Amino acid sequence: MNISPLQTARYEYMPKLPGMLRNGISEICVKEGNDTQSVADQEKIAALFPNTYGKKEITFEKGANTSVSKKQAVGVILSGGQAPGGHNVVCGLYDALKATDKENVLYGFKGGPSGLLEDSYIEFDDAYINMFRNTGGFDIIGSGRTKLETEEQFAVAAEVCKKHGITAIVIIGGDDSNTNAAVLAEYMAAHNTGVQVIGCPKTIDGDLKNEDIEISFGFDTATKTYSELIGNIERDCNSAKKYWHFIKVMGRSASHVALECALETQPNICLISEEVEAKKMSLSQIADQIADAVEKRAAKGMNFGVAVIPEGVVEFVPEFKALIAEINELLAGAKADEFNALASWEEKYAFIENGLSGDAMAVFAILPQNIQQQLFLERDPHGNVQVSLIESEKLFAAMVADKLAQRKAAGTYKGKFSAQYHFFGYEGRCAFPSNFDADYCYSLGYNAFMLIQYGFTGYLSKVSNLSRPAEEWIAGGMPITKMMNMERRHGEDKPVIRKALVELDGAPFRYFEERRDTWAVETCYTFPGAIQYFGPASVCDITTRTLALEKGMLK
Amino acid sequence: MNISPLQTARYEYMPKLPGMLRNGISEICVKEGNDTQSVADQEKIAALFPNTYGKKEITFEKGANTSVSKKQAVGVILSGGQAPGGHNVVCGLYDALKATDKENVLYGFKGGPSGLLEDSYIEFDDAYINMFRNTGGFDIIGSGRTKLETEEQFAVAAEVCKKHGITAIVIIGGDDSNTNAAVLAEYMAAHNTGVQVIGCPKTIDGDLKNEDIEISFGFDTATKTYSELIGNIERDCNSAKKYWHFIKVMGRSASHVALECALETQPNICLISEEVEAKKMSLSQIADQIADAVEKRAAKGMNFGVAVIPEGVVEFVPEFKALIAEINELLAGAKADEFNALASWEEKYAFIENGLSGDAMAVFAILPQNIQQQLFLERDPHGNVQVSLIESEKLFAAMVADKLAQRKAAGTYKGKFSAQYHFFGYEGRCAFPSNFDADYCYSLGYNAFMLIQYGFTGYLSKVSNLSRPAEEWIAGGMPITKMMNMERRHGEDKPVIRKALVELDGAPFRYFEERRDTWAVETCYTFPGAIQYFGPASVCDITTRTLALEKGMLK
Repeated sequence: MNISPLQTARYEYMPKLPGMLRNGISEICVKEGNDTQSVADQEKIAALFPNTYGKKEITFEKGANTSVSKKQAVGVILSGGQAPGGHNVVCGLYDALKATDKENVLYGFKGGPSGLLEDSYIEFDDAYINMFRNTGGFDIIGSGRTKLETEEQFAVAAEVCKKHGITAIVIIGGDDSNTNAAVLAEYMAAHNTGVQVIGCPKTIDGDLKNEDIEISFGFDTATKTYSELIGNIERDCNSAKKYWHFIKVMGRSASHVALECALETQPNICLISEEVEAKKMSLSQIADQIADAVEKRAAKGMNFGVAVIPEGVVEFVPEFKALIAEINELLAGAKADEFNALASWEEKYAFIENGLSGDAMAVFAILPQNIQQQLFLERDPHGNVQVSLIESEKLFAAMVADKLAQRKAAGTYKGKFSAQYHFFGYEGRCAFPSNFDADYCYSLGYNAFMLIQYGFTGYLSKVSNLSRPAEEWIAGGMPITKMMNMERRHGEDKPVIRKALVELDGAPFRYFEERRDTWAVETCYTFPGAIQYFGPASVCDITTRTLALEKGMLK
Repeated sequence: MNISPLQTARYEYMPKLPGMLRNGISEICVKEGNDTQSVADQEKIAALFPNTYGKKEITFEKGANTSVSKKQAVGVILSGGQAPGGHNVVCGLYDALKATDKENVLYGFKGGPSGLLEDSYIEFDDAYINMFRNTGGFDIIGSGRTKLETEEQFAVAAEVCKKHGITAIVIIGGDDSNTNAAVLAEYMAAHNTGVQVIGCPKTIDGDLKNEDIEISFGFDTATKTYSELIGNIERDCNSAKKYWHFIKVMGRSASHVALECALETQPNICLISEEVEAKKMSLSQIADQIADAVEKRAAKGMNFGVAVIPEGVVEFVPEFKALIAEINELLAGAKADEFNALASWEEKYAFIENGLSGDAMAVFAILPQNIQQQLFLERDPHGNVQVSLIESEKLFAAMVADKLAQRKAAGTYKGKFSAQYHFFGYEGRCAFPSNFDADYCYSLGYNAFMLIQYGFTGYLSKVSNLSRPAEEWIAGGMPITKMMNMERRHGEDKPVIRKALVELDGAPFRYFEERRDTWAVETCYTFPGAIQYFGPASVCDITTRTLALEKGMLK
């Protein structure tokens, strides 16, 4: 038997729907809002989406269901990295579909978008669905990173849909997947396939966020999990009083995850990649900033601390970005063979010194040797440096140690510095979804079916007012094209949903900025503890501090 | 404001006492049991503890309190690594002390045993104590690793006690600290200081366990925290289906933590150091064993898995232990300078090759280069290899990759192998104590005061029957000398509490052994999720599977 006590208990949890969806399927009607237009490049995007552009925003209300009765066969796809709550999107979708008509069927395409192309699927039934209610992971059907974006793929998808009589596809994914959902919806409409396409906003990274998406699902649970661990480490650090912990957290390019964790745990240091880029900070400046905190705390007798580092930060350091570009160039094609043929690191170092510009070499030279070696020895199949593998938590700790050694020699620093390293990512992507994510995801799925049932396509399942109790949430749909602009990608102009980075004039960053100097020097740690599913609402049902700040509910 | 919602809610939690301690201080009486003797070397230990040896085991019962009224001034010390629940020991001690007489005082010596020697302390009051109820960490007074073991130290301790009128010392620590508590108790008795000494069994490692200590506090919470993370990673792994995760967990030499986590999460592989030693396994054999699982899973299309590795495992590999001993010898004293003066790794490697025996060099040669370098470049102040810093999770992954490359060349393996690494330790030592640890620790502290009040010294605060609900727990005391035997330490025979390693004929290991071949090849992952404090008892109040198996409550 391998069902844990918590999983057994979570099967009993009934996710909370927005008030307007709580009256049963027969009591859900549509309220049309205004026509929409894309956030930028309206003409270009309208031209690319002649069948799906400019549609109205809609919300659901309590009222007689006026949708046309027809048998629905819906296919659902999980796309990209795992995020807690994905299973509940599927469960909500299934429940609304079956509540509408027991004859309706839900297919799950296996292993991500490729499941649709390869016609690899399962048909859900109650017994199978019930094993996944309120659980983490994407193992219900698996996920994958194939992108659905070419005409050839769309034609295959249309064939598969036709074969099974599929009336709608729900794509659960991040910014790219929802962009592709909109393009697929347009294709399906243009070719009169009768297949609708609905997107659902997923990503723990928090970078799929805009006027219409208050939060992507999974961000709440993942940041709570990382914050639990950071808080535990802070408590350990403040008890043992002998280590500086350097903690890298996932989140790709954006620093939303790091910032939310900092708001939850009040560490001594949290780097924000977007600020590093805006201020054009060098590695040395960042190391000096951390070393300043170490020195000030040491002067107060506190030779310990916690520094949170967003996964993508090194790519935002202009000089480091330039170095990476030069290294990729230096090892392009056959030059890599010449490099690889060199036997010793000393010979390789000489090769590097000879090949890099003076500026790039100056940056390279200050890196610790293990990082230098990582840059040259671990490259992807295209020969490029794998930036995501760079152990930036060790990089900054080593550079801070160097700074402190200099300061010690200069007599300004008299403390002890000993570092520990952590990287949290996989630990949070498949946690049991928090009550918030369980409710939000179930609502997204339930709502997605209502959009299908009312005939909408190219829409995002939209649930908003999320900083309030679920009763007050607003369910509806927004044309995905509304969120789009044109961006240059791989040498082409493409319609895409803009990735949301941390805004330096936004409330979450400003809150952090106002307090961080105090947090750096004092010990203001906060210990969120493990995610709770059963306790008081103040502990179990509150979503992120980022959202609370964005909504002005926290000052 | 830096009190999290969970911390606020946990302040309200009332820890559960054993039934016999629930009737108020005035209704607790002593029931004497049998005289005791040490588990081995009775004559030698009796001779070393003339004043404290051979005393009776006692249990508390409901009945009129017959203790002699006197003003108590108690000092408490936290010793060694953090373990969840330490704060509750202090709270339970404080509450019993104040309930007995409001004039009684509790001192906390700061920063571990050195606080007693340096007379660095705080006096607790309600406001301060209340800030720490049911919280993790040792930050209430800090901890430290100074050992209280010499006559000189004891004399200083006696002076400090005299100065403050201290009547008893409570030492919260692991096996060494409790051994030292017994020696200190004997000293205090022999010198007629009037100071009693009581020990409390702490360690997340689980290696302080015997007939009289069913479990050390902190083990439950720490293993639940690591199991949460391992389960989350398993779910991720089973969703993404592309990585093997190598997860090292804390626990020092013993593998109790790894084994408990394996029982909770059912990973594909869990190494047990005690088995590695008993079977005299080589690194290559271990790597082959893991590679077998990788190969079998790959043959079923599953190129993913989870392997749990106990922190201390490499020290139990006979050939590796021999290698470490040779390296320590090779770099002893001035020879390290010669080595350090060599400029390149190639020169250093030649020095090593020249200095090691053929057997040791054969082992060294198969290690990945980064591990080779760790062995030589990171040494402690005595010049010894820092075994705890060896990234064994990376070592085994690299060796498995080599094995698989050979098998691929031989045509027996056709899969893909890509590894991720994790080390969980600091993440769990300061978590909010589980209900079990909150209850157990509060009971240990409360009970410790009752032992003091009844005049006992050299006793361990003993709470047993822990696999049953708290109502049925049994509170009492056991002479620490009863748990002792003589062991050779640093060239001397010393009375010590024997460290408990995993018993290969014990129920927990046997349960694991019977199932692990299935777990290796099938996917039997269990997802415990985050520690819960408020839900159903089945989720919140159950302690470890190790204890359940030891008590025959799980088959």
